[in-house]
Amino acid sequence: MQSHDEAQLMETWARQAGAYALEIFQDYAAAAPRRKADNSWVTEVDENIEQMLRQQIAQAFPDDLVMGEEGGGHASSNGRIWVLDPIDGTGSFVKRLPVWCVSIGLLVDGYPAAGCVYLPVLDECYLAGLTGPATLNGQEIHAENPDFLDSQSWMAVPSNAHWRYKISYPGKTRSLGSTAANVCYVASSRACAAILGNASLWDIAGAWPILERAGGKLSTFSGGPFDWQRFYEGSSANEPLFAASNDNYATMRGMIDLAKGAI
Amino acid sequence: MQSHDEAQLMETWARQAGAYALEIFQDYAAAAPRRKADNSWVTEVDENIEQMLRQQIAQAFPDDLVMGEEGGGHASSNGRIWVLDPIDGTGSFVKRLPVWCVSIGLLVDGYPAAGCVYLPVLDECYLAGLTGPATLNGQEIHAENPDFLDSQSWMAVPSNAHWRYKISYPGKTRSLGSTAANVCYVASSRACAAILGNASLWDIAGAWPILERAGGKLSTFSGGPFDWQRFYEGSSANEPLFAASNDNYATMRGMIDLAKGAI
Repeated sequence: MQSHDEAQLMETWARQAGAYALEIFQDYAAAAPRRKADNSWVTEVDENIEQMLRQQIAQAFPDDLVMGEEGGGHASSNGRIWVLDPIDGTGSFVKRLPVWCVSIGLLVDGYPAAGCVYLPVLDECYLAGLTGPATLNGQEIHAENPDFLDSQSWMAVPSNAHWRYKISYPGKTRSLGSTAANVCYVASSRACAAILGNASLWDIAGAWPILERAGGKLSTFSGGPFDWQRFYEGSSANEPLFAASNDNYATMRGMIDLAKGAI
Repeated sequence: MQSHDEAQLMETWARQAGAYALEIFQDYAAAAPRRKADNSWVTEVDENIEQMLRQQIAQAFPDDLVMGEEGGGHASSNGRIWVLDPIDGTGSFVKRLPVWCVSIGLLVDGYPAAGCVYLPVLDECYLAGLTGPATLNGQEIHAENPDFLDSQSWMAVPSNAHWRYKISYPGKTRSLGSTAANVCYVASSRACAAILGNASLWDIAGAWPILERAGGKLSTFSGGPFDWQRFYEGSSANEPLFAASNDNYATMRGMIDLAKGAI
């Protein structure tokens, strides 16, 4: 299957899935200015996209395994596992906020090796193939923020940051709604850093290779190694993760603490 | 000039201005994945939109005054003053984040009486004419959040919330980038409340009537009266403002404090 270009396929699939999700997002926005009590319609969108992606991957790479939020295998004969997050940021999607995305990651021998994160509302496609640079809509991106202590700079924080973290960063904090998008914002130098709370493999598998290839770093809050086994079993990380450019990582990480009493 | 329909004109003008801004936003996003050092190009967009709106208002309502961020008059012979914020959320715009808007407000005898807030990236137009309900893309909206203490609910906070406020709200906090948009999110029941830090007349003149007409309330943090004179002179409010639905206002406000040492 080496003749297939994973990057190109990932982008095509993510854009197709995103176009489908966007249509429903816009219909919903037009039809229901008020919140619907039942969010089962989002689950349906999520499942439909996962089904769509699973079929496309199975057809292009029949030997690879696929893990979605619905589960999947833990080992593949060729060491390749696709990890899907049909809609990362369902909370945003449901509340008709713009930052949510389709995330597709490819693990090779257990490590995120290629990924694609597509934000339909903004038509932004972040991509890292098995080799080559990270790109945003085809243009190379780099995680570098020389002015990261500037008051106009910002870091991405989770929506529970108001009780979970103590942040002494002098710039802005923004909670926009999607973990995968936050990592991509660091990769493209929009954000100076991102705290990822309760991240699971689905949230980061697509964005991780993009960040790494752009010159950024994603690590545990304590700096310890990732508990991959835990991730593969579908659990969230048992501590926050932190993303920043290689250059700014230590300084930015030094400005965040867990709040007293936060678990 | 009473034969003109202010609401319809405001929407037309805001959509035209937004379309112009969106084009530049997208060109910039395509052309410059990395941050430009010089943000003068945004100032130019801002000034062009203000110029465009001033001309349209002068033509439709030659007796009315217009205040933009560039200044304007403090009194008009007929009691009508238009207050423009060509791009509310320039920080978002510059960092290519989606939440920014064009805001047009109409004060009558010193009080915000009609307004329009248009978010070009999402094509969302919030509107309140001199009479009638508040609408979002033509559909009536209401500020009401019976499930405002639900963990999926959210409140909008400023980007300095990490050091300025102590928030015991059990739901999510989001910092999305635009004061006017935050107020409209409360008006449409997407957000349960919004803290507005350092708000100026430009930030709220368009959104205020929308919130009020939708059944919401915007007040000072202390609950004291607005210092309108201060606003008219172009200064920011000297304390935070707080927006919520009438029903939830007291409870939501009770969950926010200024942080120790914050000014």
